[in-house]
Amino acid sequence: MTTSTSGSEQRIPDNTVEKKSDVAIAQDHALRPIQEIAREAGIPEDALIPYGTTKAKVDPTKLGEGSDARLVLVTAMSPTPAGEGKSTTLIGLVDALRLRGHKASAALREPSQGPVMGIKGGAAGGGYSQVVPMEDINLHFTGDFHAITAANNTLAAAIDNHIHQGNKLNIDPRRVTWQRCMDVNDRALRHVVTGLGGPAHGVPAETGFSITAASEIMAVLCLATDRMDLKRRLGSMTVGYTYAGKPVTVSQLGVAGALTALMRDAINPNLVQTLGGAPAFIHGGPFANIAHGCNSLMATRTAMACSDIVVTEAGFGSDLGAEKFFDITARAGRLTVDAVVLVATIRSLKYNGGVQVSDLTTENTEALREGLANLGAHVGTVRQFGVEPVIAINAFPTDTDAERALLDDWASEQGIALVSSTVWAHGGHGGLELAEAVEKVLDAPRDAGQRGSQAIYDPAEGVENSIRTIARRVYGASDVEFSRAARKQLEQLREHGLDTLPVCISKTQYSFSDDPTQLGAPRGHTLHVRELVPRTGAGFVVVLTGNVMTMPGLPKSPAALRIDVDSEGTISGLF
Amino acid sequence: MTTSTSGSEQRIPDNTVEKKSDVAIAQDHALRPIQEIAREAGIPEDALIPYGTTKAKVDPTKLGEGSDARLVLVTAMSPTPAGEGKSTTLIGLVDALRLRGHKASAALREPSQGPVMGIKGGAAGGGYSQVVPMEDINLHFTGDFHAITAANNTLAAAIDNHIHQGNKLNIDPRRVTWQRCMDVNDRALRHVVTGLGGPAHGVPAETGFSITAASEIMAVLCLATDRMDLKRRLGSMTVGYTYAGKPVTVSQLGVAGALTALMRDAINPNLVQTLGGAPAFIHGGPFANIAHGCNSLMATRTAMACSDIVVTEAGFGSDLGAEKFFDITARAGRLTVDAVVLVATIRSLKYNGGVQVSDLTTENTEALREGLANLGAHVGTVRQFGVEPVIAINAFPTDTDAERALLDDWASEQGIALVSSTVWAHGGHGGLELAEAVEKVLDAPRDAGQRGSQAIYDPAEGVENSIRTIARRVYGASDVEFSRAARKQLEQLREHGLDTLPVCISKTQYSFSDDPTQLGAPRGHTLHVRELVPRTGAGFVVVLTGNVMTMPGLPKSPAALRIDVDSEGTISGLF
Repeated sequence: MTTSTSGSEQRIPDNTVEKKSDVAIAQDHALRPIQEIAREAGIPEDALIPYGTTKAKVDPTKLGEGSDARLVLVTAMSPTPAGEGKSTTLIGLVDALRLRGHKASAALREPSQGPVMGIKGGAAGGGYSQVVPMEDINLHFTGDFHAITAANNTLAAAIDNHIHQGNKLNIDPRRVTWQRCMDVNDRALRHVVTGLGGPAHGVPAETGFSITAASEIMAVLCLATDRMDLKRRLGSMTVGYTYAGKPVTVSQLGVAGALTALMRDAINPNLVQTLGGAPAFIHGGPFANIAHGCNSLMATRTAMACSDIVVTEAGFGSDLGAEKFFDITARAGRLTVDAVVLVATIRSLKYNGGVQVSDLTTENTEALREGLANLGAHVGTVRQFGVEPVIAINAFPTDTDAERALLDDWASEQGIALVSSTVWAHGGHGGLELAEAVEKVLDAPRDAGQRGSQAIYDPAEGVENSIRTIARRVYGASDVEFSRAARKQLEQLREHGLDTLPVCISKTQYSFSDDPTQLGAPRGHTLHVRELVPRTGAGFVVVLTGNVMTMPGLPKSPAALRIDVDSEGTISGLF
Repeated sequence: MTTSTSGSEQRIPDNTVEKKSDVAIAQDHALRPIQEIAREAGIPEDALIPYGTTKAKVDPTKLGEGSDARLVLVTAMSPTPAGEGKSTTLIGLVDALRLRGHKASAALREPSQGPVMGIKGGAAGGGYSQVVPMEDINLHFTGDFHAITAANNTLAAAIDNHIHQGNKLNIDPRRVTWQRCMDVNDRALRHVVTGLGGPAHGVPAETGFSITAASEIMAVLCLATDRMDLKRRLGSMTVGYTYAGKPVTVSQLGVAGALTALMRDAINPNLVQTLGGAPAFIHGGPFANIAHGCNSLMATRTAMACSDIVVTEAGFGSDLGAEKFFDITARAGRLTVDAVVLVATIRSLKYNGGVQVSDLTTENTEALREGLANLGAHVGTVRQFGVEPVIAINAFPTDTDAERALLDDWASEQGIALVSSTVWAHGGHGGLELAEAVEKVLDAPRDAGQRGSQAIYDPAEGVENSIRTIARRVYGASDVEFSRAARKQLEQLREHGLDTLPVCISKTQYSFSDDPTQLGAPRGHTLHVRELVPRTGAGFVVVLTGNVMTMPGLPKSPAALRIDVDSEGTISGLF
């Protein structure tokens, strides 16, 4: 296994590769008409709803039933501030699979517009492994996030109006749990007081805004199997509690139909293309901690209906995103995963071995060896779900031969498939080895009766058991400690008939434990459960193990200061 | 002039006309592909950006230069709770003009989604004079309002972030004038406190949200002549004041480029069709009191580039919308109005003659005669701008022969063209008489050197003079009284070089005076100016003469309770 010069989406200086921003690479690329991409994928003309000439929505009800497509899940080692390049690897893998003759497509999350204006400046892969048109995908796209914002805030207005107009349902104004949302990074909206100004202007309330990706409606969109399931889930969402402590749902407020009408178009998956010309179904982008962090089920299914191989991703590391993919998404959508790609970088491994961010470009085989414990633990996690992973090392120009040799030796010893990927610099051509390794997993003979992946807990055994199983088998914890509040909430879940929902654990992405400073592969720790929040529309119980920030802020020098547009409408300043 | 049985957009019971909701009429109509509508209008294929098969955006830079199209402005008598049917009349007139062989099109405002969920339940004409697809136009449409919301709130976040990160510009946090917005009717957002929760969460501030239609960015979009003018205007917007009292603009914050990028697509006018198959350019929807209440200049110009006759509208009565059209929009866009249609109803005339809403269906010629003073005053207003109006009576089944005869006599005596319109019930066929009357005005020989309409004041003479001129000549006031605050603001306008901006007077729409209870045609009253707010991006000074509510609330039984969608995606419950 050799690694050629390459880059990453973190833009490490690299003198051997032409220096072009992502947006410049994307804009210099000649996009194929979206009709052509759709035709190639076998999407009938009447199922395609164009948004301009290079974006479209696809009506899945007009596609054929079922598919034999095989599903590849891309996950990663524990995220670090250096970044790993999961989406970039995914897109490059799809292009490589196509170069190798497969009818492959990507199923991805939509980027959130707030962070585009903040630190990120765009998120649609990077370098020569991007989805395009990247400016459109990063800004507004086909309006899905805006539809969610509108539905979320129409619901908030309906709740406050109900209380204002006489409060027939007897909602306790102090126990309204539904918050407003906005797809903007705005820390000043985290904690607000609304309804001030006197009796004509509503009932004062302490509340807050989350970013749209954190709205339960985003999770609902991503788990819904069709329009009527969407309406049922929206109607089942809990918005607060009565003075008597009974949950109040959207259906009781009578606005499930209106919210579904606002989501009528948003439910259809979006179709764009990779730089290699593969179909990319980009749809939904839920948070990966308080929600499940995967693109919509409908996008994955639609992709599977028109491909032989679909590559999709899950947020953060395998302990968070992949676990939720197997235990929540795959369960809800009856999906089976046929192969898993585990993305890592030498830099991030060294970081997990104790190196500071500023020193990551210096060779350090000792730290690399230390950090491999983290990667090994993720391999273990993936195997828990019944799949043998392929490790993709997203290569950087600062990686050294000694470091690469160490990695190869480690992989051979452990009997793990490990390949380098240079898709950032070379597009699909940089992912051919990875594609070959994935094919091997897909083509490996299976034992009779055994087919792919499985969930690791049975929700029927109750929320406490589900949490304990994940903590032990995925996080390597030896115990789980519930706060007094969480204990009480466990009782309430049983009382309200919600104890058999799957769990969605919100935990720091930086560590297997709930302590972000415990890098590597901590074992024997205790998981501290602070709070349990039923999300009755999404159909899971959020398990909070720390403070979660659901509304980001802007940095001192936000990307917005560098974004511009010229008289032709060409946008610059996106990464 | 005869009046046949008819209806109105207010849905008065009418046993002679098939009872179908607007949305049912619209859904039963077979829409023509938007490509066909565009081709007929001479829009080149590469200028059309489809959003599905029945909506599109048009890139005006790809259309031919200039046009000899004639422009018809639809305005109305003073609005009443009974409604007048301005948009319905406009759409029917366009369809009638087409039936009479003209290449006619409509330029209209986009409906705001907040009121769709509130009282209105939709706004795209009514009955057999609608623009379609009405559900799409009413919900999200092509995302223009969402783009404005995003730009507005990205700016709000950038302001608060600037203060949070050290406040280099020395912005006085108490004097930030920029508010957030949302396209939702939500009274609880009128007065809020943001930035609570401690130093990590921003600087606490008393602020509020307006509905998106009231954002200055909406006014900017509607007055911009092209993308670079949009960027210049966005950069010129005032967001607040420094501790030293100096205005702070968007350019100083450095985010004009980012806001323009967010508005990149929104600047292109939208193309849909009337039920009669005419092109309808629907774009922008600014408030008609704190803003100018007309669709975008770019939509009107685009319509003029591909039509012989363009019919457009201005909000509220002629004292508000039409005045602003002539003095702000037409001036900014160098437009000349060739004919004006003044919409009135017998019911609204009786209301202006002192009849209660509940009694409007009872014959009352005495009250009608009284109420004609209002219509007469609007005729006078329109003539001030150099155009002879045609009165369109939007006929209702409850209008009686005696009432109609009285109207005809009055019009003959006064030498005013007055025709009945039954476009709600009969589409374009119900507007043929109106079309003929409009043609007569368009074809009337003009004095040499005289070409159509003109503004009534010269902004160069200062804001005070502009206000006094409008008050005297349009409102019939004999004096203007400035509050102490307004006096001080007049001085500040001079100081900041803003005294020669046109004025945008915010006044109750129900009366020519600033007292909503003074119906008919009050004369000799005093206009009370409370406050002056420079809108340096839109390029006008808002003159507040009363309390303006820029965020509506939901009623006790909002339309949202009746809106639904079925498994096919068909929406019901819109009016």
